[in-house]
Amino acid sequence: MFRANGYYADLQGGYLFSEIARRVASYQKQHPGADIIRMGIGDVTRPLAPCVITALHNAVNEMADAASFRGYGPEQGYDFLREAIVAADYRARGISITPDEVFVSDGAKCDVGNIQELFGRDTVVALMDPVYPVYADTNVMTGRAGKYNKEEGGYENIVYLPCTAQNGFVPDLPKRPADVIYLCYPNNPTGMTITRAQLKAFVEYALENKALLLYDSAYEIFIGDPDAPHSVFEIEGANRCAIEFRSLSKTAGFTGVRCAYAVVPKALRCRDDNGGDVSLHDMWFRRQSTRFNGVPYITQRGAEAIFSEEGRKQILEIAAYYMQNARIICQSMQKAGYTVYGGLNAPYIWLQTPGGDSWAFFDELLNTKQIVGTPGAGFGKAGEGYFRMTAFASRENTLRAMERICGQA
Amino acid sequence: MFRANGYYADLQGGYLFSEIARRVASYQKQHPGADIIRMGIGDVTRPLAPCVITALHNAVNEMADAASFRGYGPEQGYDFLREAIVAADYRARGISITPDEVFVSDGAKCDVGNIQELFGRDTVVALMDPVYPVYADTNVMTGRAGKYNKEEGGYENIVYLPCTAQNGFVPDLPKRPADVIYLCYPNNPTGMTITRAQLKAFVEYALENKALLLYDSAYEIFIGDPDAPHSVFEIEGANRCAIEFRSLSKTAGFTGVRCAYAVVPKALRCRDDNGGDVSLHDMWFRRQSTRFNGVPYITQRGAEAIFSEEGRKQILEIAAYYMQNARIICQSMQKAGYTVYGGLNAPYIWLQTPGGDSWAFFDELLNTKQIVGTPGAGFGKAGEGYFRMTAFASRENTLRAMERICGQA
Repeated sequence: MFRANGYYADLQGGYLFSEIARRVASYQKQHPGADIIRMGIGDVTRPLAPCVITALHNAVNEMADAASFRGYGPEQGYDFLREAIVAADYRARGISITPDEVFVSDGAKCDVGNIQELFGRDTVVALMDPVYPVYADTNVMTGRAGKYNKEEGGYENIVYLPCTAQNGFVPDLPKRPADVIYLCYPNNPTGMTITRAQLKAFVEYALENKALLLYDSAYEIFIGDPDAPHSVFEIEGANRCAIEFRSLSKTAGFTGVRCAYAVVPKALRCRDDNGGDVSLHDMWFRRQSTRFNGVPYITQRGAEAIFSEEGRKQILEIAAYYMQNARIICQSMQKAGYTVYGGLNAPYIWLQTPGGDSWAFFDELLNTKQIVGTPGAGFGKAGEGYFRMTAFASRENTLRAMERICGQA
Repeated sequence: MFRANGYYADLQGGYLFSEIARRVASYQKQHPGADIIRMGIGDVTRPLAPCVITALHNAVNEMADAASFRGYGPEQGYDFLREAIVAADYRARGISITPDEVFVSDGAKCDVGNIQELFGRDTVVALMDPVYPVYADTNVMTGRAGKYNKEEGGYENIVYLPCTAQNGFVPDLPKRPADVIYLCYPNNPTGMTITRAQLKAFVEYALENKALLLYDSAYEIFIGDPDAPHSVFEIEGANRCAIEFRSLSKTAGFTGVRCAYAVVPKALRCRDDNGGDVSLHDMWFRRQSTRFNGVPYITQRGAEAIFSEEGRKQILEIAAYYMQNARIICQSMQKAGYTVYGGLNAPYIWLQTPGGDSWAFFDELLNTKQIVGTPGAGFGKAGEGYFRMTAFASRENTLRAMERICGQA
């Protein structure tokens, strides 16, 4: 008799963004004419850069002709893209990563969930709190999180690393032993980033404790602070303890195009459940070869375009556009008396909710201002009392939203 | 201390097609000028249909303009595509499937691996033998297969369902209890298909034993026999025990474009590990929402095009081209004295290898004729003594290959 995975029953509520979509749809049904401004889900609004459009058209044309048609590609990505990534994102910063350490995928969301397939049976996971819900939910689904404890406001087997105003939204090292530590900087949802010294402390902890660091730097392009680290691999020894995830979703407006990559260094070795000495690079290669068929050729040509000189210029302009939105939001909200964080190294503004209850603030903002944001509680216990606004709307909508909230922009 | 998933150590050898690629690359290195004809990996060679090209260009143009730009789409696929799929592939055959039972994905390979995340802890899996290696390897990686037994030629926890010339390559019902049964018809690698009565027996078995059927019909478009079932959902009651996987890879030459779909009926309910009554549809919805970000908008527009009247005509022409290749291969090989199966309802020809050893036949064919096929042993114990040739090469290469092997085509 077939029985389904019982761990799904441990999931708390719906996926955060589905729940937001549900509330917005319900409001819209009741107020059909409402002019809703969306600053909730972190989705981009600017069109693709011209260099990407050209590259996509060219690739589509190649697929129309038997002589240039491409079928199955390498599951890990075409060399042209892996080489372009290494040159622009690593070599240019003096970081030694080789193209075959880069695994192109259809999204960091997929990678971050899929990477768990490499974890041994009793792996203990440490998560930042607040955190991108996918990190937590995917661990619940695989049974690593344990039961949800309502009083504690968390899953019993997860080691939570609170990120608060007190620690500048960079957590202390784990107080309970953790085998895997997820770090995301520049951070979603807080919009804050980490210093090189702080990141170094995590790398040293991981090396000493033989822990694995999963470093999500999907928002790297938005870093404004010249001293902030762009990659975990800037830190000595990280290639022996860390995997890095990057995404073109925000970097180049690829949320609907789907391209990301993971860097799994060849130096990253560990024991497996059986006591064998294994390479996580080899395991990920095998995983991707067996369970994935690569990113569309057309998409990979589009992605390649952003790594050219002209492409880089074009995506930096778009990133600057969003970061100007972030400045507008920060300044307006501060003028209106809100305490705000983030917005300098990431396109997210993390504001303290007056009264504390972030879902109540969500409903109030939706009902009275027709603005959608994301309640901090949706990101974890330490997110309660905060509210995320994104800078990904159009300039016009950003200004209109600020006018609605603050009476000025 | 982090420990890696020890089940990877139970995998036997490399992924089959990686091993083939390795042997071919090694041959090429030794014989740089060799004119190799590839009939190994089942990759298509015809360019995309004109309707797809047009739709892709149009969608790329939409992404260039803020007014028509699309960011994150629904993780389950856009309604326009789900509705087109239902209309063409189900409603037109009198099968009652609703668009929200269709989950669009980037590949059946991914779906077939990912679906295991819905399986409970002690799920026993039954696999056809020979079988598409992904079914077996993904179960090994998650610890469901157990150890490999060299003498038995299989994994200890897998229930094998031998498909041989004796049973017409359709297995008997499982003799040991199995919770999940993978069926693939029209079949890769044997090229054979199943009758409605045989499929009905499996559905009845699943309903009686509360087993789950995973029905892979990626080669449905190639069915030539007017009586062969196109979908498991043609069988009464299948919507309470089966999930169907389809792919556009072979249907429309999408191996490099990446689009597939799974049909998970809402009537499909079962117990979970905790004794709860759950809907596999709801669980898959949650899984896809949490761990996947949908198929590129551009791809989905390209996919939609094949479901139009003109699109359907264009892809049927391409399918007919490959099936003509299949006929050429069957006839030539038979004339040359080989015993062949398949090739009538699927673009695969399954031939008996003289001498029996299929890797030896692979090497011989590569070394003496510069032709790449796939050794049956790579698909499982019952595949030994057979060899798979695909009809996906160009007509010219198919004819040249037959000339090399048989001295005639």
